[in-house]
Amino acid sequence: MSRLDDIPSSPGKFKMEKSSYLHRLRFQSSLTKFAFFSFFLLCLISLLFLRSPPSINPSSPSDPSRRSLRTNTYGGPAWEKRLRSSARIRTSTNNGITVLVTGAAGFVGTHVSAALKRRGDGVIGLDNFNDYYDPSLKRARRALLERSGIFIVEGDINDVELLRKLFKIVSFTHVMHLAAQAGVRYAMENPSSYVHSNIAGFVNLLEICKSVNPQPAIVWASSSSVYGLNTKVPFSEKDKTDQPASLYAATKKAGEEIAHTYNHIYGLSLTGLRFFTVYGPWGRPDMAYFFFTKDILKGKSISIFESANHGTVARDFTYIDDIVKGCLAALDTAEKSTGSGGKKRGPAQLRVFNLGNTSPVPVSDLVRILERQLKVKAKKNLIKMPRNGDVPFTHANISLAQRELGYKPTTDLQTGLKKFVRWYLSYYSGDKKAAAR
Amino acid sequence: MSRLDDIPSSPGKFKMEKSSYLHRLRFQSSLTKFAFFSFFLLCLISLLFLRSPPSINPSSPSDPSRRSLRTNTYGGPAWEKRLRSSARIRTSTNNGITVLVTGAAGFVGTHVSAALKRRGDGVIGLDNFNDYYDPSLKRARRALLERSGIFIVEGDINDVELLRKLFKIVSFTHVMHLAAQAGVRYAMENPSSYVHSNIAGFVNLLEICKSVNPQPAIVWASSSSVYGLNTKVPFSEKDKTDQPASLYAATKKAGEEIAHTYNHIYGLSLTGLRFFTVYGPWGRPDMAYFFFTKDILKGKSISIFESANHGTVARDFTYIDDIVKGCLAALDTAEKSTGSGGKKRGPAQLRVFNLGNTSPVPVSDLVRILERQLKVKAKKNLIKMPRNGDVPFTHANISLAQRELGYKPTTDLQTGLKKFVRWYLSYYSGDKKAAAR
Repeated sequence: MSRLDDIPSSPGKFKMEKSSYLHRLRFQSSLTKFAFFSFFLLCLISLLFLRSPPSINPSSPSDPSRRSLRTNTYGGPAWEKRLRSSARIRTSTNNGITVLVTGAAGFVGTHVSAALKRRGDGVIGLDNFNDYYDPSLKRARRALLERSGIFIVEGDINDVELLRKLFKIVSFTHVMHLAAQAGVRYAMENPSSYVHSNIAGFVNLLEICKSVNPQPAIVWASSSSVYGLNTKVPFSEKDKTDQPASLYAATKKAGEEIAHTYNHIYGLSLTGLRFFTVYGPWGRPDMAYFFFTKDILKGKSISIFESANHGTVARDFTYIDDIVKGCLAALDTAEKSTGSGGKKRGPAQLRVFNLGNTSPVPVSDLVRILERQLKVKAKKNLIKMPRNGDVPFTHANISLAQRELGYKPTTDLQTGLKKFVRWYLSYYSGDKKAAAR
Repeated sequence: MSRLDDIPSSPGKFKMEKSSYLHRLRFQSSLTKFAFFSFFLLCLISLLFLRSPPSINPSSPSDPSRRSLRTNTYGGPAWEKRLRSSARIRTSTNNGITVLVTGAAGFVGTHVSAALKRRGDGVIGLDNFNDYYDPSLKRARRALLERSGIFIVEGDINDVELLRKLFKIVSFTHVMHLAAQAGVRYAMENPSSYVHSNIAGFVNLLEICKSVNPQPAIVWASSSSVYGLNTKVPFSEKDKTDQPASLYAATKKAGEEIAHTYNHIYGLSLTGLRFFTVYGPWGRPDMAYFFFTKDILKGKSISIFESANHGTVARDFTYIDDIVKGCLAALDTAEKSTGSGGKKRGPAQLRVFNLGNTSPVPVSDLVRILERQLKVKAKKNLIKMPRNGDVPFTHANISLAQRELGYKPTTDLQTGLKKFVRWYLSYYSGDKKAAAR
């Protein structure tokens, strides 16, 4: 483009060239307009593009990879300092452990993290705080844990860089893997979330664990739902488990298969715990005992499922404190992984345990206990159990866990629900302090 | 910005305002430069951004979601016309079927598609042409199928919109689901590809199938690898299959669990086929019989695995034509799905069959046959089977398939390899016509 200051200075000469200046001025300004127009057009396109990244599953109301993999900021000296402090072992005995608890702001994760901290172990939490249920409950749990010095990192188990960074800063002796997409019915709304968390996330975590040195021992949450439509009761760990009734159950069973592979190829020590309907304070709002309590107090009617031919639907309800004892026993009896640098150096421990209460209770009895404890009559309607992944009956054989973990559940449903109701009334009455006791 | 044509026409008056024109010209040109500069800057940023979209698994050398979900263009009248023509049933008998074959440019997919077309069924293929092995071989298979009027759509089974569109345009009676991340050893390089294709892709396909009306019947490729470390031989479908030795096997077993769930909840008719080491013309370059042939011809040494204590590694090699007969029999005996509108209306068929040859052959014998047929002595070195997901032994019990599908393998390894070698020599000698016969 010719330089502007070569415009002639003598006016006479200018007349003849006035039209060329005019011409250049007009050309110049339309060029400017064109440039600005395309600049804004491109801004618009980029904005549109950025707002809707290509999602392989637009059908799911909230694409899990976007929803739970919010680009959380982490790193930096202060962040690392918090990690190291939270990971420090503070027990005088020399068998303290350093545990990464995934799903730490979840129900079981919160209780296990607190229990580990109480006995002086190093604990770091990881949670993506997704909105499967009310995130404010997860944040209240986090506040509870932070008061006892536990740092919960906000992030997703599918975030490779974050996991690498955590393992680079802290040498975890154990991983308590509880992060998962829970719930049986939600799979009919958002199936890809189960693949994203329960399979892709688990593979990602195992990939990191097999590559670090030393490899941690891993205890992880499988589920009693893997027993699916089995009818032989009580359910034992050596029973065939090939009849899942929900995608949740299928992804948990897939987790057990994947655990076998990573134990076989890389020497990772892996213990799967099949939890049976866990309940208690700080529990999950999507569980029946929880929303029955809410609806009974609101005077809303509650639907109680009947199985085929008006059969009873029963669950082996297990109180959270018993589950926590089982989790800690699994961590304490976990053998070291045998691999290093991603290579297996010898056979490694591979275990699966039922953690239940061995006494299934009809859901109708659960409702009667709640009515007594809430002093409110429930508006019940009996409906046929829909085909949404639920199963009619669960009953755990816990002899293996008793023998190998010293697992001994001690809380019956009556006692456990009393503690839950006390928590529920104080938490939802706004008395957060009482709820935290 | 003031309009350019209000520049005064009388020169005398001009002198005094010359500097303001100069000033306006200079301002105009720097504005243009600025606008163009920012326009190009933004182009650069957008380009950079487009070239490396956010991937949750940067560790995998080629992030599968990017590699295989290339935004392929589809749709439009011509495209729909090709679909309808390819889907048209051209058999005079009234039991022709319309089949979506996923993985149609794969080894088994190509042979099954051709066989369906030969008998007058409607066939549409779907393949993402990923680069797990040489894509030109997949394109050569596609050319072969296109010559017989089969349209293979380029796309990924994780592409919800594409699948919806296909099912909207064509009412498939059956889906032959063969698309998968195959291979046992590659999982150690790119584990997320197995989750992406074998689990997320399968769930995505089942989600589409359960929602369409009428629902198709689905026949899909499970794998003999689900038998993993089982030692009881021959392997039977009712054996426990909980010892996978590779992530590939774990994801195929997970597929069987997921199939059970979608059959139970949505009434989809599902038949899983456990293929046993399929070989033959147009086969897969990552399989031992294939790359042994290549290396023997090149005079390169080949590694023959020994199992523990110098044990023999043997496979139940099954010739492709026998597998194709099994696949077609499975399609023909598949009962209709019972659901509609995503709701199950009654129990639906759920089957799993071994498709093997019932005669395991030591890999060393395979090499001896190849040496005779290639008339070249192999440079063999015996090595201990690495812990990479391989298993020492496979042997199929096919009585169930014989009884229910009329499945009857007829090709022994000698005969099958002869046909493969003939194809191999003509294909890789550039005589594509001979290879296509």
